[in-house]
Amino acid sequence: MEEKEKIRITVDIYGQTYTILGTDSPSHVRQVATLVDNQMRAIRERNPYLDTTKIAVLTAVNSVHDLLKLQNEKEALEQELKKLKG
Amino acid sequence: MEEKEKIRITVDIYGQTYTILGTDSPSHVRQVATLVDNQMRAIRERNPYLDTTKIAVLTAVNSVHDLLKLQNEKEALEQELKKLKG
Repeated sequence: MEEKEKIRITVDIYGQTYTILGTDSPSHVRQVATLVDNQMRAIRERNPYLDTTKIAVLTAVNSVHDLLKLQNEKEALEQELKKLKG
Repeated sequence: MEEKEKIRITVDIYGQTYTILGTDSPSHVRQVATLVDNQMRAIRERNPYLDTTKIAVLTAVNSVHDLLKLQNEKEALEQELKKLKG
């Protein structure tokens, strides 16, 4: 298997610049950055007195929550597929 | 449908206390908090000079990246199921 070359992509999130190193396409990394930025701004709207670190941690909490939920949904689909395939 | 009662759960993440308001079980919220805390500590290990906000933002970036990947995988499974069911 050919190893994918790692590339550096620079994105802005909540007024700060981040350099992301990885094998993902720039468009994927930018999509992720935009989603994080939007979610941080939405949390600040609802909690104007939170500092940036807490806003970022709560954004991570929301994402990990969604991730666990989606993991369960994916496992349920895999079980269903397994049954259908016999 | 009965509306679930919202409860307040207090967790510690990276040395700070957060109060999470939601309908999830305390054990789910604690699992999420532990995952975020672990991921923040892992990022700090690899990047000892990052400040806490940047560590938290990069944790959110990783989680959203995993989330998008999982969403694609889930959609592929749903397509496969749809085909099998005719």
